[in-house]
Amino acid sequence: MEEGVLFNIIEKMLADGKFSAVKNILAEMNVVDIAQLISRTSQENQVKMFRLMPTDISAETFSYLDSDIQSTIVESITNAELGKLVDEMFIDDAVDFLEDVPANVVTRVLANTSAETRKTINRFLNYPEDSAGSIMTVEMAAFDIDCTVEAAIDNLRRTALDKETIETCYCTDSKHILLGSVPLRRLIVSKPQTKIGEIMLDDEQLIYVNTTDDQETVAQIVRKYDLLSVPVVDKDKKLVGIITVDDIVDVIQQENTEDFEKMALLIPSEEDYMKTGVVRLFRNRIPWLLILMVSATFTGFIIDSFEEKLMAVAGLTACIPMLMDTSGNSGNQVSTLIIRGLALGTVRPSDYLKVLWKEIRVALMCGVTLAAANFVRMYLLNFATNSVTDRIFETFFVVCISMLFTVVVAKIIGCSLPMVAKVLHLDPALMAGPMITTIVDAVSLLIYFGFASLVLF
Amino acid sequence: MEEGVLFNIIEKMLADGKFSAVKNILAEMNVVDIAQLISRTSQENQVKMFRLMPTDISAETFSYLDSDIQSTIVESITNAELGKLVDEMFIDDAVDFLEDVPANVVTRVLANTSAETRKTINRFLNYPEDSAGSIMTVEMAAFDIDCTVEAAIDNLRRTALDKETIETCYCTDSKHILLGSVPLRRLIVSKPQTKIGEIMLDDEQLIYVNTTDDQETVAQIVRKYDLLSVPVVDKDKKLVGIITVDDIVDVIQQENTEDFEKMALLIPSEEDYMKTGVVRLFRNRIPWLLILMVSATFTGFIIDSFEEKLMAVAGLTACIPMLMDTSGNSGNQVSTLIIRGLALGTVRPSDYLKVLWKEIRVALMCGVTLAAANFVRMYLLNFATNSVTDRIFETFFVVCISMLFTVVVAKIIGCSLPMVAKVLHLDPALMAGPMITTIVDAVSLLIYFGFASLVLF
Repeated sequence: MEEGVLFNIIEKMLADGKFSAVKNILAEMNVVDIAQLISRTSQENQVKMFRLMPTDISAETFSYLDSDIQSTIVESITNAELGKLVDEMFIDDAVDFLEDVPANVVTRVLANTSAETRKTINRFLNYPEDSAGSIMTVEMAAFDIDCTVEAAIDNLRRTALDKETIETCYCTDSKHILLGSVPLRRLIVSKPQTKIGEIMLDDEQLIYVNTTDDQETVAQIVRKYDLLSVPVVDKDKKLVGIITVDDIVDVIQQENTEDFEKMALLIPSEEDYMKTGVVRLFRNRIPWLLILMVSATFTGFIIDSFEEKLMAVAGLTACIPMLMDTSGNSGNQVSTLIIRGLALGTVRPSDYLKVLWKEIRVALMCGVTLAAANFVRMYLLNFATNSVTDRIFETFFVVCISMLFTVVVAKIIGCSLPMVAKVLHLDPALMAGPMITTIVDAVSLLIYFGFASLVLF
Repeated sequence: MEEGVLFNIIEKMLADGKFSAVKNILAEMNVVDIAQLISRTSQENQVKMFRLMPTDISAETFSYLDSDIQSTIVESITNAELGKLVDEMFIDDAVDFLEDVPANVVTRVLANTSAETRKTINRFLNYPEDSAGSIMTVEMAAFDIDCTVEAAIDNLRRTALDKETIETCYCTDSKHILLGSVPLRRLIVSKPQTKIGEIMLDDEQLIYVNTTDDQETVAQIVRKYDLLSVPVVDKDKKLVGIITVDDIVDVIQQENTEDFEKMALLIPSEEDYMKTGVVRLFRNRIPWLLILMVSATFTGFIIDSFEEKLMAVAGLTACIPMLMDTSGNSGNQVSTLIIRGLALGTVRPSDYLKVLWKEIRVALMCGVTLAAANFVRMYLLNFATNSVTDRIFETFFVVCISMLFTVVVAKIIGCSLPMVAKVLHLDPALMAGPMITTIVDAVSLLIYFGFASLVLF
């Protein structure tokens, strides 16, 4: 509501050429909100608004814009403006930006930044995608262990505005090897002449990650130890950067989204749904739909080979969807819990026997309840429709005992497959609802027709 | 591996009575790792290890233990020890602990803590569950706007060790009304005699939450603005606490887990899977299984009323599971994307028409591809089994055209239901795979039998 009003005011001011008024409004706003306003306005106004901000604010705002708008702005500004912009951005934001824009924009950016920034950016662009190196920032507080508390605080006083966080300072030897850390709170309560090395938390307690570690590993470590930032070292244990928890929050959301997508058997995509084109959506969805459709050939075979017998008893066919859906849902419930437990580290493959024993008991309870409820349901329906046939109770019995067995088997498959995937270093998230359903469907039919053959034929 | 070795060493040392050796090892360890060791050892050793740590370390370790182990330890320590422990813990950790333990433990804890801590805890216990008030901490850096930079830094020097974070300090008037914030980095670069009020970021840019806001709202704000902490105010805008991003990380994981559970139609549970009892698991799963099973009565009706016609054409029945699964999977894919988009705020109900138009196009592409692939599949199968009947191509046509239509309808239902749920203030996560499948099943059958009636009967 209020955002819309503000948007209209600024649009009108820009149209009327009241630039200093817009400048005053932007100066009072949060960069995230400015980025939202810029996202909504016309291309022409985007560049105007961008130029009405001081360089430090415009650089921060820029890092919150989507890559298509970033490209528009970059194409409209001078080389000098571009150089200033990238030099002013945090390195990790600049790298994020460069990873998403066309190659010609990258070339132009690199040609117009300072030699130092260019060197750092090139190094970052070489880290594997989604590695700690690719998401870290180099703007951190790091001191030699021989530095005094006084000198460190004095240094922070001069440089702190350029750092992403100074809550924790890191300590290295003269070769930049990471040796320990000092929380700022400890730094400011220490005597001025104390050496940093004397007050640092040392190696044993120091938690760090490697440039090549996957961002998911980093997120797990940050979450486990409740860190606000984690230092990143290269293969020689030299300190090269830090990762702050606000970036980890984004990693966690991204990894969760990826799991949601995999569990629905979509090819994961980093783009927002609203920005993804139709062809891309199609390509993300069709592979698994095809694979599962072809797999359903087996259920077809099973029904084919029992078709004549099925026809012999009224009502048998009508119960197939209910049996298949209920067992699919049962398997889906447990596979979701196990996949999530494996992702969060609360369930491990070594827990398999415990999980299996637990699931068998839960399955028996669910199975008996569902079978009983189903018996009542069928009895009432039959009573209502008055369609009594001579083998009605045998039919009821076959459906209900099949229900019990399929639920038990579905729960066993649902807890086993994600565990097996994990052990085989496949992604457990693939063993979710749709995959479980396809497998459980075939098994349910075999159980159903097996009991039908025993009792009815 | 290494953890196991360390565990064995400590177990042996405790058995041999080498307590000071254990004490030295624990002093070098991270509290999270100590908590893991304690979780694995016997009840007797848990208390021993707990007592071998200095109070501040043991209090922090304690907050990382599960509530059953916390209860064990509380039952084994003296009232004096208990009082010290709770006074030493951060308030938010103490409240978390008290929310999970039996009432008699709560009573004993409150009877043995200082009056001030007791008052604060009681206030916290009154905030609604999962509200900002219930997860905030009161250990923050806050200053009157008339305070000088020098006085503020001096105050931090004395008290910083007790704060959760001092990266951002908050500014209030004499009535504790929140007026602004100062990043520590800005504080330490300012002149000593400057008043805090002059350097603070003021109201316009200040982001804060209310004690009664839901933790999910807080998480969205922290994520949107990349905050390291957010101030919490009461209804009079008085500053009462802060929430730090490390707690938000836990909230995000918890909310994601809840969504995963709801999408699998489980009643969400905050307990870890491995710690949840069989009866509880049963109770979380059975309600929706029952509801969906009964809903499947409709698919039964539909099949019942077409049963005679189904029997007339060979192969029609055998295709039912494949059609139902494929349309269910198609609907599941899109509902997952929409549910996730709604949760992250990247898709809004107002985007409905755009989404619908996009989905119809994707569905046509998927539908045509699947129908074509299915035609080839059926043709090859038929060729292989040589089971030619006279109306084989009509049958193929019915199956393939039904495939196309069911996929389109499934995609439309899959994108619409979560949006409808959102507008009706229901949880969109319930409109995931299992729910979509049950609805889409019935619709698929109607489409299938409709085409069969037109072409074959």
